Amino acid sequence: MRNVRGEMWKDLNIADLPRLSRFPFPVQSLGYTHGGIYPERTYHYERFEVCIRRYSQALTAAEYINGTAYRVKFPNVIMKSPGTVHTFGVEFPRDVVHFTYAAEMEAALRSMLPFPEKPVWEIHLGTKENQLITELMDLMEKSHEFGVTDRIDLAAFQLLELLIFSYNYSILRPDYYETRIRSIASYFQLHYKEEIDIVKLTAHYGMSRSTFLRHWQRFFRKTPGQYLLDLKLQEACRLLQEDHSLSVSDLTFELGFRESAYFCSLFRKKFGMTPLQFRHHAKIKSFQED
Amino acid sequence: MRNVRGEMWKDLNIADLPRLSRFPFPVQSLGYTHGGIYPERTYHYERFEVCIRRYSQALTAAEYINGTAYRVKFPNVIMKSPGTVHTFGVEFPRDVVHFTYAAEMEAALRSMLPFPEKPVWEIHLGTKENQLITELMDLMEKSHEFGVTDRIDLAAFQLLELLIFSYNYSILRPDYYETRIRSIASYFQLHYKEEIDIVKLTAHYGMSRSTFLRHWQRFFRKTPGQYLLDLKLQEACRLLQEDHSLSVSDLTFELGFRESAYFCSLFRKKFGMTPLQFRHHAKIKSFQED
Repeated sequence: MRNVRGEMWKDLNIADLPRLSRFPFPVQSLGYTHGGIYPERTYHYERFEVCIRRYSQALTAAEYINGTAYRVKFPNVIMKSPGTVHTFGVEFPRDVVHFTYAAEMEAALRSMLPFPEKPVWEIHLGTKENQLITELMDLMEKSHEFGVTDRIDLAAFQLLELLIFSYNYSILRPDYYETRIRSIASYFQLHYKEEIDIVKLTAHYGMSRSTFLRHWQRFFRKTPGQYLLDLKLQEACRLLQEDHSLSVSDLTFELGFRESAYFCSLFRKKFGMTPLQFRHHAKIKSFQED
Repeated sequence: MRNVRGEMWKDLNIADLPRLSRFPFPVQSLGYTHGGIYPERTYHYERFEVCIRRYSQALTAAEYINGTAYRVKFPNVIMKSPGTVHTFGVEFPRDVVHFTYAAEMEAALRSMLPFPEKPVWEIHLGTKENQLITELMDLMEKSHEFGVTDRIDLAAFQLLELLIFSYNYSILRPDYYETRIRSIASYFQLHYKEEIDIVKLTAHYGMSRSTFLRHWQRFFRKTPGQYLLDLKLQEACRLLQEDHSLSVSDLTFELGFRESAYFCSLFRKKFGMTPLQFRHHAKIKSFQED
């Protein structure tokens, strides 16, 4: 429908609808605005509102929040805090998606997520963000169906988290090497049991071995070798506890060590006991806890 | 890689990777198994593990958990609680996705989500569930990139919630009419400001007016008329507080009432004051809070 201001808009109040889970951040209402041009007005907010301005024919959004002027490019997101007064007009049609929380939720949300200090910031709407917005729009159509309010609560929280991260990311701007070092560390984390050809791997990311090592130590205290070894030994502990039928030579093979004696000596150096002593201790501990 | 049991599998330990947000349920590790046949063994779990058995050539999964036998069709999900002992073998290759939480997280998760009493249940893997599984698999590849661990934590929680709801839903099995009544209520919630042709709407859902009213009162205490009116009056309160420039006749039009006097009398009946008195009270309240 078009409201008195000539916009196409929807606002769905789900505050009183039941939830199946006790997720701590229930959404009160959500909705969208499509288009609409209206003169400058002043609004008084009583809830905590997240307002995603997805698109506008204008380049920037301008407004006063408690008397302070803000001007930010589109797309952007604005946090409307309870008790604040916002003054703005819309000269060119804009598309907005919003969701609100009860006023008393704001403090808890702020303690959980790394909110920027300013109330409005430019955002990047990527695949994941747009997917969540579409999901919210779809869920709006079936608010009374089984589990839908719970899904709205989680999707909204997830979207809020991404929008906040998008700000943090734009501040941090990881450099060329950081991006690559993080990719290599991700690769290590997933492939540590396999034989890793470091020279080949770093070449794939456009780095020599020495460049790689120089930048690696900017982000990690351990050497790449120690990092990989610790991943293996940590996994050894888990396997020793979980599956008592695995032998030391099974573990040696599974974790990609060349020899059992070598694996055992590394394990002992790290934990002060052999793998089988570790399993024995874990058994006793688990027995005592029962 | 293929492990000693001949499976293709991955397990990614993200327990020690940093998080940007303080979401209360950080995932410790996640991974998948593809295929693998192995004889009956006993496992001792020290963490809380959610294990989604997506697919198997076998019809059912059979196992002993702390000595009790369970047999459930595929796909199914199993909750492995810390301190429990599971015995099972795999005769036919199966595909599994799992994620784990620290042992001490289990109680908090159980208090937040409506877990079934039994540890293993049949599930439905729909579009949303599969999408979340794919997302987790994608995120596994880039664990060290900005914000990825946080996204894993949320996607895992969301997937767990859906799997638990899928059990609750299978127990409740809403009947033919409940499904339709919920769709109509969802429609009301989104379209209450517009003119709603109840006869046309209920006919669309294959019900006469009297059948609709009979089943409506199974789920709602208010009549449909009162339900729609309350939605309008609730929205009136919000608009009165937020935008002080809106007149009573603006509201009358925006909320789809025919006449201002009629709107005001309904508002007064519900809240004991006129719309403008309500706005005045809200202003004073907000002034006093400052």
